[in-house]
Amino acid sequence: MKEKTEQDLELVKKTLREAEQYAHACRVLNYDEETICPKKGMEEQGELTAFLENQAFVQKKNPAFLEAADRLYGERQELDPLDRVLAESLHRDRERTERITPEQDAAHRKVYNRAFVDWLSAKNRADYRIFEPSLKAVAKAQQEEISLCTRQFDTPYDSLLDLYERGMTERELDEIFGTCRERLLPLLERIRKSKKEIRKDFLSRTVTDEQQRRMADWLLDVMCFDRERGAITTTEHPFTDGLGRNDVRITTHYYPNSFLSSIFTVVHEGGHALFEMLQPQENWDHFVNQNKTMGMHESVSRFYENRIGRSPEFLSILYPKAKEIFPQVLSDVTQEEFYEAVNAVEPSLIRTEADEFTYTLHIIIRYEIEKQIVDGGADFDHLPELWNRKYQEYLGVTPDNDRVGILQDVHWASGFGYFPAYALGNLYNAMYYTRMQQDLDIGKEAASGNFSAINRWMQDHVFARADQLDAKTWIREITGRELTPKDFLDYLEEKYGRLYCLD
Amino acid sequence: MKEKTEQDLELVKKTLREAEQYAHACRVLNYDEETICPKKGMEEQGELTAFLENQAFVQKKNPAFLEAADRLYGERQELDPLDRVLAESLHRDRERTERITPEQDAAHRKVYNRAFVDWLSAKNRADYRIFEPSLKAVAKAQQEEISLCTRQFDTPYDSLLDLYERGMTERELDEIFGTCRERLLPLLERIRKSKKEIRKDFLSRTVTDEQQRRMADWLLDVMCFDRERGAITTTEHPFTDGLGRNDVRITTHYYPNSFLSSIFTVVHEGGHALFEMLQPQENWDHFVNQNKTMGMHESVSRFYENRIGRSPEFLSILYPKAKEIFPQVLSDVTQEEFYEAVNAVEPSLIRTEADEFTYTLHIIIRYEIEKQIVDGGADFDHLPELWNRKYQEYLGVTPDNDRVGILQDVHWASGFGYFPAYALGNLYNAMYYTRMQQDLDIGKEAASGNFSAINRWMQDHVFARADQLDAKTWIREITGRELTPKDFLDYLEEKYGRLYCLD
Repeated sequence: MKEKTEQDLELVKKTLREAEQYAHACRVLNYDEETICPKKGMEEQGELTAFLENQAFVQKKNPAFLEAADRLYGERQELDPLDRVLAESLHRDRERTERITPEQDAAHRKVYNRAFVDWLSAKNRADYRIFEPSLKAVAKAQQEEISLCTRQFDTPYDSLLDLYERGMTERELDEIFGTCRERLLPLLERIRKSKKEIRKDFLSRTVTDEQQRRMADWLLDVMCFDRERGAITTTEHPFTDGLGRNDVRITTHYYPNSFLSSIFTVVHEGGHALFEMLQPQENWDHFVNQNKTMGMHESVSRFYENRIGRSPEFLSILYPKAKEIFPQVLSDVTQEEFYEAVNAVEPSLIRTEADEFTYTLHIIIRYEIEKQIVDGGADFDHLPELWNRKYQEYLGVTPDNDRVGILQDVHWASGFGYFPAYALGNLYNAMYYTRMQQDLDIGKEAASGNFSAINRWMQDHVFARADQLDAKTWIREITGRELTPKDFLDYLEEKYGRLYCLD
Repeated sequence: MKEKTEQDLELVKKTLREAEQYAHACRVLNYDEETICPKKGMEEQGELTAFLENQAFVQKKNPAFLEAADRLYGERQELDPLDRVLAESLHRDRERTERITPEQDAAHRKVYNRAFVDWLSAKNRADYRIFEPSLKAVAKAQQEEISLCTRQFDTPYDSLLDLYERGMTERELDEIFGTCRERLLPLLERIRKSKKEIRKDFLSRTVTDEQQRRMADWLLDVMCFDRERGAITTTEHPFTDGLGRNDVRITTHYYPNSFLSSIFTVVHEGGHALFEMLQPQENWDHFVNQNKTMGMHESVSRFYENRIGRSPEFLSILYPKAKEIFPQVLSDVTQEEFYEAVNAVEPSLIRTEADEFTYTLHIIIRYEIEKQIVDGGADFDHLPELWNRKYQEYLGVTPDNDRVGILQDVHWASGFGYFPAYALGNLYNAMYYTRMQQDLDIGKEAASGNFSAINRWMQDHVFARADQLDAKTWIREITGRELTPKDFLDYLEEKYGRLYCLD
């Protein structure tokens, strides 16, 4: 390596190390704000976070740093693999930010902040009209951001998609989601018409927080969640955050009349946490530990939640444990009834409450609408009607009002292109599940009460290079195959065909 | 005001505002570390806090800031009252730090850090010899710090005392504690010999976390703890921290077999929180909100915990509520038995578990020993024996080992002079309780289920000028009288004489 390149690398890392300290503090402050900070303390804490974020921002705007990063990108073929990944990721940031003036940047932030406030008020009053002007402004801001990006994409939507799922394109998604629609819609129709009765009365029986906490502890032990490097607390909207290399926080929510909710939240968030905890430690040293795509992350959380957590084998150990911890709920319920209730398909209005089967359809609806918005062909006046028509067409249900319709998700207040990652996660994990079967008796491991073998496989195959690759390359490297929805759709057909006794 | 003075004031406040942002972030990080941060994440988070603390420190070491602060002190008679308080407090900091070189400062920190580690290991092994060299080193470092302070005190101990209880002196404490000893020791002897039997069997009956949480919520509601400006969580060692002007956190601990523990922790920490919440808001704008002495703060927490919380009137509403929330504990217990158990006097080895009556004796023992250490007359080889002799003499109990003896408290690992504040708090609140009786029927308010009238009185009389005055002036201003232990001792004699039927 040239001496100059070494100096550049040193300067870049020194700057990132300092910026990372501010960023780490901001993560702790944000976590605190989401979980504990009292309502009236939030404003001051928000200002504090903005102050510290700005300290980090100032570091990264230093011209010497930017020039060094540019030179490193030019010399990237000479760098160690992780340093090359770093140089590339700094370059990607540059492509998006270098043409934006501070005034434009500030104006965009203002649009998104305003949109969030309007969205909240619109949702509370179930009135899309309150949100509509902001939604248009967000679309305009996003189009401007796309036009300022120095990298070329085939379509404007591809540019946004690239932010959350590097390398994925609208063309590929059209094909993937087209296949999903073709295979899922007729199957859903057959499920809806099936005579199968699934008992659900016991799902709303009352449990205490104490019991749910005991269950969460058991689940985290089974998952081999490292308590010395992680913590669990509660919050309104559960999430996972990797605050530091030895500090991963998950949150859940205890509802007294929905004991399954926290169980699958813990397994889902626990999956995200394992991905963070078991990634290579050198990712942190090279500042690439946040390079995972959203789809990769979601694939792992859903792998644990759905592929393992809702499998008959795992339920064979969850059922007796649940019976022990929640005797009042399950005393008159058989293991078979428990399995069926956990996996029941129920088309519904709300994405975040959707079952494994219908979830993808919720995403396809959003994808189809947001593509129209980004491509400039959306009729903003009639978006709620479009939303409702699609829900009727794909899921057979129609929202009563915009709160449970087009206003249900916060995402569009800050832009577009995020939703597909949620659905892609299922496709990815179905493919690596197929591959994992060559090495492991997955059902046996899921029923063993200890996920260490599964985790080790995930660490070696799934987690190891996630930060270095785009999702398509990553999945090819893990499975030796190109990305396809086939494994996921085959799995759904097989599982739900059996559950609903379809021929 | 001179134009230069105005400029100085502006510069000083601008600097403090920036330093305060780092300090605020550090408070959140520390709170997180004490409550949630997983074990292996603590080291990195500790480094992060040190980094941010240093950013604050750098601001305050700026020569222009220090010169402006010096000039403001010179012009302090011309300033508004709160600005004058600020100028004086900046000057006090200067008197302690300006002669210390960075090398000396670093060396002292090293001594205290080392002492903490040694103390912990000594306590774990119940072996004073492990701690002894560090204790000597702490004494030496403290003597050096005292000698470098530019302000003159009558005795070395006075200089340390001034750190935690401004204006208090060894001479005054000797007199106060002498009186306490003279009146408490014979009374304790009579209590020990009394025939009174107090039932305590029910105190260790099992309760759930859920029940204790419900009780904590009720207590905080009664205290008018503002949930929008405060929060409660759990931790090993309960504490209160005012993180921001609208953000005060308290913590408690739920023991399954000691339901009284969390009750009185919540009332105690809730008292600290009310002091923080109900202080004048302009204290924050003038950066004087941390000027309260330790004794003042402890007086307020103990006022709520002991004077209100353990009063028969408050217990007349706590008893039925406790019976409702913990039916399994109190079904066969009368209100009288409950009152007696809550107030039972029991000489014991551990300060933090001491009852209201014997607490002061624990403090006097520490005071007498630490004075010897600071004055250079301590026989370090035989300190444990001295400790044990005093426990036998004052409390009639003797530690089995150093863990429950001289090693029980962490304080001496970071210096001396802190303990008296704990005892002074009781004296202060007894005096303002006397004064409060002129304005309020305190018993009636305590039994009303709503402390708002008491809080308002505390806000107007006790909290209002705490940050502007030293404790002696403050107590004189509140009560119109000079500091005396009389009110406190009279109260104990009356209450415990009655409880133990001493003629």
